[in-house]
Amino acid sequence: MTKPLGEFGRISRFFKPLAAGFPGARGLRDDAAVFGVPEGRELVVTTDAMVAGVHFFPDDAPADIAAKLMRSNLSDLAAMGAEPLAYTLVTALPRGLDESWLEGFAAGLGEDQRRFGIALAGGDSVSTTGPVTLSVTAFGLVPAGRALPRWGGRPGDRVFVTGSIGDAALGLEIAYGRLDVPDEETSAHLLRRLRRPDPRTTIGPRLIGLAGGAMDVSDGLVADLGHLCGESGCAALLRAEAVPLSDAARGAIDGDPVRLALAITGGDDYELLFTAPAAARDDLAALSADCGVAITEIGELHPGTPGEVSVLDAATTPLPLTRRGWDHF
Amino acid sequence: MTKPLGEFGRISRFFKPLAAGFPGARGLRDDAAVFGVPEGRELVVTTDAMVAGVHFFPDDAPADIAAKLMRSNLSDLAAMGAEPLAYTLVTALPRGLDESWLEGFAAGLGEDQRRFGIALAGGDSVSTTGPVTLSVTAFGLVPAGRALPRWGGRPGDRVFVTGSIGDAALGLEIAYGRLDVPDEETSAHLLRRLRRPDPRTTIGPRLIGLAGGAMDVSDGLVADLGHLCGESGCAALLRAEAVPLSDAARGAIDGDPVRLALAITGGDDYELLFTAPAAARDDLAALSADCGVAITEIGELHPGTPGEVSVLDAATTPLPLTRRGWDHF
Repeated sequence: MTKPLGEFGRISRFFKPLAAGFPGARGLRDDAAVFGVPEGRELVVTTDAMVAGVHFFPDDAPADIAAKLMRSNLSDLAAMGAEPLAYTLVTALPRGLDESWLEGFAAGLGEDQRRFGIALAGGDSVSTTGPVTLSVTAFGLVPAGRALPRWGGRPGDRVFVTGSIGDAALGLEIAYGRLDVPDEETSAHLLRRLRRPDPRTTIGPRLIGLAGGAMDVSDGLVADLGHLCGESGCAALLRAEAVPLSDAARGAIDGDPVRLALAITGGDDYELLFTAPAAARDDLAALSADCGVAITEIGELHPGTPGEVSVLDAATTPLPLTRRGWDHF
Repeated sequence: MTKPLGEFGRISRFFKPLAAGFPGARGLRDDAAVFGVPEGRELVVTTDAMVAGVHFFPDDAPADIAAKLMRSNLSDLAAMGAEPLAYTLVTALPRGLDESWLEGFAAGLGEDQRRFGIALAGGDSVSTTGPVTLSVTAFGLVPAGRALPRWGGRPGDRVFVTGSIGDAALGLEIAYGRLDVPDEETSAHLLRRLRRPDPRTTIGPRLIGLAGGAMDVSDGLVADLGHLCGESGCAALLRAEAVPLSDAARGAIDGDPVRLALAITGGDDYELLFTAPAAARDDLAALSADCGVAITEIGELHPGTPGEVSVLDAATTPLPLTRRGWDHF
């Protein structure tokens, strides 16, 4: 058995390489990171934390955990219209944790750094007597004054969502052994979407000038639409039938309304939810084609009790839901 | 018993008021914070995490825990020469934690926000099955290109330190019941310095143009001087006799060389350690008088093995130390 590396050894081996591409990280040799923000731009700052046993399974692959942590933050940046710049990382790890875990975790971070054009700027590593606890604070850049607010929706606006909804919630059911799906391919897709969501980093910045209100879907589509229209001071109507589903999700739902309800209220989609006037449809279709990601109209905002979401099924009768979303807390 | 507030209730009650003074927080209503950096300035970003039972006692007063968390981060900003701007907060709290804990914690944050001119910009709140785990990412501003680096020391530079050294290490011994001190006043001072360090936020920015290399003392004076001179590519000589001690620390040490060694190797001082040419002495004396905080010359840098620190006692014979510092990790 080799001697554990200790804090400085771990930083040197696993984290300094991740900071090599960002001069503001100062090689992780200083007390802090230092970087400028170009004129005409603002910094967007978001933080997401994850705890083993609460937000992921303790035996999930460390590279998957890294990807989920990174991507949930990138999704928040995208929801603001920001382009990724850098991130800081806090790890609280049990003393006995095998170094190969950290190696896999760092490899996952490195892979996503290259994929999404972001680099490590700094952080802190501490030990804990509890479960693995991780947080990332991500920085992005946005044209000054143009960040997309949650509260920018207006009555009459249409509601749109990127990609597909419900994959992660169905994937979680599979992970728990509570859902049988027709084939291995379906299962693999839903689990992949649970573990490695697809933050819409390309679409987000291009929604500036098109979208009114925007946020990312992490607590469940219905709950998050409630947040968006609540902050916008109006109500929303959601057509369940219009909600975009992947082929895998459609196969897993198999016409079962309980599973459909799960898909539209389950968490961890990390898709973008936004409003825009009906006149923006053509531009959004062009953007969708350009980015190769679906953008689907799923409802509209209307005057009414702020935050109230009516969910209609195919026959346009209200769909009863036992919950609106998932509380990560 | 009242119903627990849940994540949104807690944010609304405890955290939104802390973000009220910082427009970039967007009232904690959005996915992220958004703020600009003035032209000619750079952003300084630092992160410090703390875990109950590792970095503080689980039954410490929550306002003290808040103060220590905030001040350890402010100390890092000061060490870079940066003025405080804002911070984000991540809390991972056990589900059963009493809401009065959070109330005390938020009150402590609020008090330090007013004292140090900083405000909450955002964050995340999650639950954990482990101990209370907290982290702050602090943001400060510094004139572009002028942040104080650790590696700015040169052979011949004198070494200076602010305030007094060893209070927190001696306070920790008292907290553990391992050290008897002559009177209650001594004990109170050392414990206060352990729990509520004094980040040198006023002096830090004014060291720009005076100091060469700078960092804050958190791992122990000898260890941190080793880091500073190691990054500066030279060795250091430290005169133990010259290290500034509070009256309380002097009383607790009471001539015992083991306790003196503890004072200069123990952690959590949160003083500034920096180098400057001898010619800067007058300017530093004026700065010290102006800020009402001691600045004391304690040694010098010289060519030699990078990172090697020789500690001399009053008779200028080497003082043997069993350790250089404290590993928070």
